[in-house]
Amino acid sequence: MADIAEECAVTDSKPISTIVIIIAMRSEALPLVNTFKLLEDTDSLFPVGVPWVRYHGMYKDLKINIIWPGKDRTLGVDSVGTISASLVTYASVLALKPDLIINTGTAGGFKAKGADIGDVYIVSEVAFHDRRIPIPIFDQYGIGFRKSFATPNLVTNLNLKVDKLSTGDSLEMSPVEKESIENNDAAIKDMEGAAIAYVADILSVPIIFIKAVTDIVDGGKPTAEEFLNNLAAVTATLQQKVTQVVEFINGRCLEDL
Amino acid sequence: MADIAEECAVTDSKPISTIVIIIAMRSEALPLVNTFKLLEDTDSLFPVGVPWVRYHGMYKDLKINIIWPGKDRTLGVDSVGTISASLVTYASVLALKPDLIINTGTAGGFKAKGADIGDVYIVSEVAFHDRRIPIPIFDQYGIGFRKSFATPNLVTNLNLKVDKLSTGDSLEMSPVEKESIENNDAAIKDMEGAAIAYVADILSVPIIFIKAVTDIVDGGKPTAEEFLNNLAAVTATLQQKVTQVVEFINGRCLEDL
Repeated sequence: MADIAEECAVTDSKPISTIVIIIAMRSEALPLVNTFKLLEDTDSLFPVGVPWVRYHGMYKDLKINIIWPGKDRTLGVDSVGTISASLVTYASVLALKPDLIINTGTAGGFKAKGADIGDVYIVSEVAFHDRRIPIPIFDQYGIGFRKSFATPNLVTNLNLKVDKLSTGDSLEMSPVEKESIENNDAAIKDMEGAAIAYVADILSVPIIFIKAVTDIVDGGKPTAEEFLNNLAAVTATLQQKVTQVVEFINGRCLEDL
Repeated sequence: MADIAEECAVTDSKPISTIVIIIAMRSEALPLVNTFKLLEDTDSLFPVGVPWVRYHGMYKDLKINIIWPGKDRTLGVDSVGTISASLVTYASVLALKPDLIINTGTAGGFKAKGADIGDVYIVSEVAFHDRRIPIPIFDQYGIGFRKSFATPNLVTNLNLKVDKLSTGDSLEMSPVEKESIENNDAAIKDMEGAAIAYVADILSVPIIFIKAVTDIVDGGKPTAEEFLNNLAAVTATLQQKVTQVVEFINGRCLEDL
């Protein structure tokens, strides 16, 4: 470990030790849980009653925590969307004090911005497309533009696409939301990213996003159908890429990513 | 206190002791802070970096905590909307273990459902109007329908209007959102309620909502302008009603509300 620490570009910096990976859907999380041989918590870090699930373990020199917001206790579906993602990120950061948050999962892509099914993106900037507050400054608060932690070496090394992400709580998009996504200049859309970035920001934890495209939003097919058809294959691609990202992170310092 | 406890309808029940009042905007919170002579925390309950503010004190037999999500650290505006409200509710419940949550603040009203400027509502049911997920069961998760804690005696005693609330992260509404609000059968709309209800639900804390109408959404005037014009006057009305609600709660048990 001493050798690796000496490689850090910044004096007194240490290699990344603890990472929290936030994943909204169980089907997106499980392949990675298996890859890293993680175990589900038997004694939850989280309050009684919340459905949040933590899988954890060591992978090489990294303490890896995959956090999934779990299934809605009443309805039994994955607790997708910004509110669950915000809460589980907040609780995980307080409990685990990670050096880095990774939010990974599937996304819709815009062919007009060059996205194709199965593409894996690292996100440069995030914003919301469904928080319209037409009062000066509140409008910017609603959009919630934030930059991700910059990882130029990671991007070059893994040959990932880099572009902007727009977040909203609907799987499809209304005409008004389409306009907002265009204003956000986003190539991909998801249902959690900008919310997780908000929590990472207020708690001062660096965050990166790795998103794989399951459906083309500006194509001819209904989003829900295309999403469900491609979910398994795209999740497998995502598993490979996230594993490569974690391999790259292992032994490195934040500023060397 | 013994006398009051003996009045509780349910054996072993005790009068309500601690309440958390979640209010999204400072201008909505301060009149109540003054009424109850609350003090701002000098040593925050919350993590370093978050802008959340707690005002607290005793009012008669009640430990009252008014929680305001604070001003966005970068932009300086109130941290409105579902994400901040969810986070601050979660953190407040864990820290304070309240017997009851009250979410109060201003709302838009629908004249088609009988709402008028200055009306004060107690909310029967909440739902979201901007979380459209057209996959079976996920669609219901997105709508997030929840009932408030029932307070029939409070409603009768204070002569409050009772109706449904719909929540979304935009101040105005798009045509698609208008349709969702109509499907939710809501008389009023806000930007936090259903999110706070979600957190109250997963943490098993009873919640009620008291909302005052600042603007008529289905009227002729622009929402933002009407909202800002009526904010001060409606906040004063809300101050009176919330004070009456707190007076009514004092010394009573949950099941007697």
